[in-house]
Amino acid sequence: MLIMEPRAFAIEMDTGALRPAERVIRRTLREMRALFADQDAVERILATDGDRLIYEVCLAGIEEAAGQIPYSTTVIQPGRVGDEFHMTKGHFHVLRDRAEIYLGLAGEGHLILQTEDGTARSLSMRPGTVGYVPPHWGHRTANSGSVPFAFLAAWPGEAGHDYGTVEERGFAQILVSRDGRPTLIANPTHV
Amino acid sequence: MLIMEPRAFAIEMDTGALRPAERVIRRTLREMRALFADQDAVERILATDGDRLIYEVCLAGIEEAAGQIPYSTTVIQPGRVGDEFHMTKGHFHVLRDRAEIYLGLAGEGHLILQTEDGTARSLSMRPGTVGYVPPHWGHRTANSGSVPFAFLAAWPGEAGHDYGTVEERGFAQILVSRDGRPTLIANPTHV
Repeated sequence: MLIMEPRAFAIEMDTGALRPAERVIRRTLREMRALFADQDAVERILATDGDRLIYEVCLAGIEEAAGQIPYSTTVIQPGRVGDEFHMTKGHFHVLRDRAEIYLGLAGEGHLILQTEDGTARSLSMRPGTVGYVPPHWGHRTANSGSVPFAFLAAWPGEAGHDYGTVEERGFAQILVSRDGRPTLIANPTHV
Repeated sequence: MLIMEPRAFAIEMDTGALRPAERVIRRTLREMRALFADQDAVERILATDGDRLIYEVCLAGIEEAAGQIPYSTTVIQPGRVGDEFHMTKGHFHVLRDRAEIYLGLAGEGHLILQTEDGTARSLSMRPGTVGYVPPHWGHRTANSGSVPFAFLAAWPGEAGHDYGTVEERGFAQILVSRDGRPTLIANPTHV
């Protein structure tokens, strides 16, 4: 039996960076362009300001396998595309009945959840908030504040990530700014 | 299919308290008396100072079932029993190949790990340290600082807790103060 060595990582609690990260994923507006509801706003930003960093994920490199609990930190930059807050791509788990746990580290944001039949919820997240994604809920996070929003996420190693369902259908509800407040509204591009 | 509602809890990051906790477990020296190596020191403390709180666990009430990720916060009071630092009871998982993840929130401590054949390790923990307990490692935590040591823990819901093995055999190594520094030494009472 191969026994894995225990290992510690350090999170910079004020920035959400994980050191040493095994892998860092950067998502920019250009590659996420289809996910935002206001397509005119996407094209205007890309034409005027160029591409922009939406979020960064630092992975600890724990194996995605049953029995393990892989984890990562994510930092979403503040900003909007039209009225819609910067957000992650969002995913369901391949094994739909696997949960995920989030802990807010810095800044403010929302955890946006939905079931496959389109029931939507959102949880407000700040430093110290544990947001629990129960089995069967697809989930993404959005930065609804004015500074970078950082959080820790951990999930069962066998869960698997299904990004395709969200890419194809979108979320039923999106988080936008209305009268200066983060508000969930129906997603006009949801299919 | 019964879908569980998403729910957020708040951790007081400076104290480690979880609000609202579903269940709080308090462990005192009297009920843990057999776990400390220096039995004379245990009896002396109980006779002189009376019982004392060693640690408190706040559970979020997530079901212990496959697919879930139950989590808790723990606060270990500072102090020693003889040379040995205040610590948790420690456990293996019933399913030995399930991992666990720890995040230091406040104070300083050590995550003490051992395999069933007695190989021991320790990881120093401070706020922002993620200590990973790989599959097959029994684990306990100790407060090696001078203020309460608080951390978040999360584990696969199907893992199960085996406290009996540690109660019967002890850990192969214990964390004691030597020349003012936390030091792992062989446990004289380990069987």
